[in-house]
Amino acid sequence: MSSRDIKIPEPSLKRLPDYVHFLRSLRCGGARIVSTTDIGRALRLDPTQVRKDLAWAGAEGRPRVGYQVDELVAILEQFLGWRNASAAFLAGTGHLGSALLGYAGLREHGLDLVAAFDSDQDKVGEEIHGVKVLEVDRLTGLARRMRVHIGVLTVPAEAAQEVAEKMVEGGIVSIWNFAPVSLQLPEEIFVQSGELYAQLAVLLRRTEEAVSRNTSTTPSGA
Amino acid sequence: MSSRDIKIPEPSLKRLPDYVHFLRSLRCGGARIVSTTDIGRALRLDPTQVRKDLAWAGAEGRPRVGYQVDELVAILEQFLGWRNASAAFLAGTGHLGSALLGYAGLREHGLDLVAAFDSDQDKVGEEIHGVKVLEVDRLTGLARRMRVHIGVLTVPAEAAQEVAEKMVEGGIVSIWNFAPVSLQLPEEIFVQSGELYAQLAVLLRRTEEAVSRNTSTTPSGA
Repeated sequence: MSSRDIKIPEPSLKRLPDYVHFLRSLRCGGARIVSTTDIGRALRLDPTQVRKDLAWAGAEGRPRVGYQVDELVAILEQFLGWRNASAAFLAGTGHLGSALLGYAGLREHGLDLVAAFDSDQDKVGEEIHGVKVLEVDRLTGLARRMRVHIGVLTVPAEAAQEVAEKMVEGGIVSIWNFAPVSLQLPEEIFVQSGELYAQLAVLLRRTEEAVSRNTSTTPSGA
Repeated sequence: MSSRDIKIPEPSLKRLPDYVHFLRSLRCGGARIVSTTDIGRALRLDPTQVRKDLAWAGAEGRPRVGYQVDELVAILEQFLGWRNASAAFLAGTGHLGSALLGYAGLREHGLDLVAAFDSDQDKVGEEIHGVKVLEVDRLTGLARRMRVHIGVLTVPAEAAQEVAEKMVEGGIVSIWNFAPVSLQLPEEIFVQSGELYAQLAVLLRRTEEAVSRNTSTTPSGA
């Protein structure tokens, strides 16, 4: 079995950042040992699930003792790539793009935006939160030369496909897509949707349901 | 059966924005009629799934004809709440919060950020992208008075729980949480995670897998 066949399932992977955030707050409070029951209670997860998730990242607790908090944080941070942030290019320096460039949380979570690209000549040459804005036509060549493998796409919908293709041509293999369109790219390219609009759709719908429930029924008492 | 029992499944709901974006681009190109096959091909979905999703939103096509593009866009926009944006409060005007305040895409997608809140006295009284920043202690009272039901949480992790509780106390029923913590709130409160870190974890992992695959194997030919 090659390592490709045993990759961590996506739901497990997605929970790992929450574990780190929780473990860090535990550590701040002085805790040195933690059990899957503690973690499960705090994050509302089944302890068995917690144990499996941690095992995927390479962490094994000691039966009836638990995990060393420090060690567990280190293992998870290493696994998640937070200790060596990966270089990435961002294309599209509008509101959302600029915000991401200024968002320190990204680097702490493994993503280092090393250059930004825009087609607007007024923006080219500027610095946004310390990151240089370059002409979008240079993206392909620079990605190739600097061996950048990750692209963040914050261009308007109508430009998204073209810019994504420039990324792929430059050797970028993963794209975080915040443009509200589906990209048509070779199958081996991984596209993570930023999902803002999908999340918003759920949020608005559930709000409407809750509000109409509250106004249409009388409280059923304590 | 009450209307509560027949609510649209989340995966269907999350696809609706993509349909609108695609249908608008079709409309720009002059198309007046569209079939579920057309939509499915463009968005890589099964046509039967497309038909079901559209039916949840209240749109019925005509057999062997399809849907009127204009009418379908109107029905979906109405269903998604894009035609009457809902008022929302945002708390935390750091990089991400400021970005969301300036992000015109949110209002177009149904979310109207009518006020922002911060605990930093230097920020209180300012305007960010036309939205007034108010003292966070006023959030509860104002939410109640203005009947705001949605909160967007972009405060640092350590402040998130407290500010979320202020929101709930003010009658907010849905929270879009971008702080990297799990909130402990009454069960009836809907929390949509912004998921930035979870998405990033997947993105980084898949990149690493792709890069190691490309360097460890020779291309298998054209």
